[in-house]
Amino acid sequence: MNGVDLAQKLATFSEHYRPRTVGQFNGHDLMVAKVKGPFVWHRHEDTDDFFLVLKGRIRIELRDGNVELGPGELYVVPKGVEHRPVADDEAHILLIERSGTPNTGDAATAAPRVVI
Amino acid sequence: MNGVDLAQKLATFSEHYRPRTVGQFNGHDLMVAKVKGPFVWHRHEDTDDFFLVLKGRIRIELRDGNVELGPGELYVVPKGVEHRPVADDEAHILLIERSGTPNTGDAATAAPRVVI
Repeated sequence: MNGVDLAQKLATFSEHYRPRTVGQFNGHDLMVAKVKGPFVWHRHEDTDDFFLVLKGRIRIELRDGNVELGPGELYVVPKGVEHRPVADDEAHILLIERSGTPNTGDAATAAPRVVI
Repeated sequence: MNGVDLAQKLATFSEHYRPRTVGQFNGHDLMVAKVKGPFVWHRHEDTDDFFLVLKGRIRIELRDGNVELGPGELYVVPKGVEHRPVADDEAHILLIERSGTPNTGDAATAAPRVVI
């Protein structure tokens, strides 16, 4: 049996803000993503949003302040809280959200869920 | 606002198999732990068990095979599946389980939940 090598999964794609699902956990998707530049402001009404930086740095902008994260640092955006991830340079992250959560907070604009 | 620096949290304690809770996510505890040697065989009837190695290596023994994990590798033990984590040398891990899950699978023998 094999574990999931996150760096190996990240090496298989290059698009930004297109998470890949690499596992499941208690009704949640475990996803890796490459991010660069600003994402859109959004919120998830039904799920907290887990971010762990694997490589590089990201900033999670909130309406009342920012959270700066480097490798090995995590932050959970509580459900319902508006936020915008931004990366000045490319960064790699582990994301966890309830399965089926649209990454933009809106099914109409969300990236498709891709399992690798 | 600050993120959670996992290495900084891990530097605050030395005991093995005594997870520290560093955050909450959708009714789950986010925990860091130092592990060394074999843990006990156990299962969690009500929750999957998320392991991500941050430093060192662990082996998750299952009744029908083992999973070897190094830094940046994760594995989810499905609920109900008997398992035993083992680390030949000290390793550091991120664990996620439903809040209140006894780490041994049995409240009578579980390590107390400690929030740091």
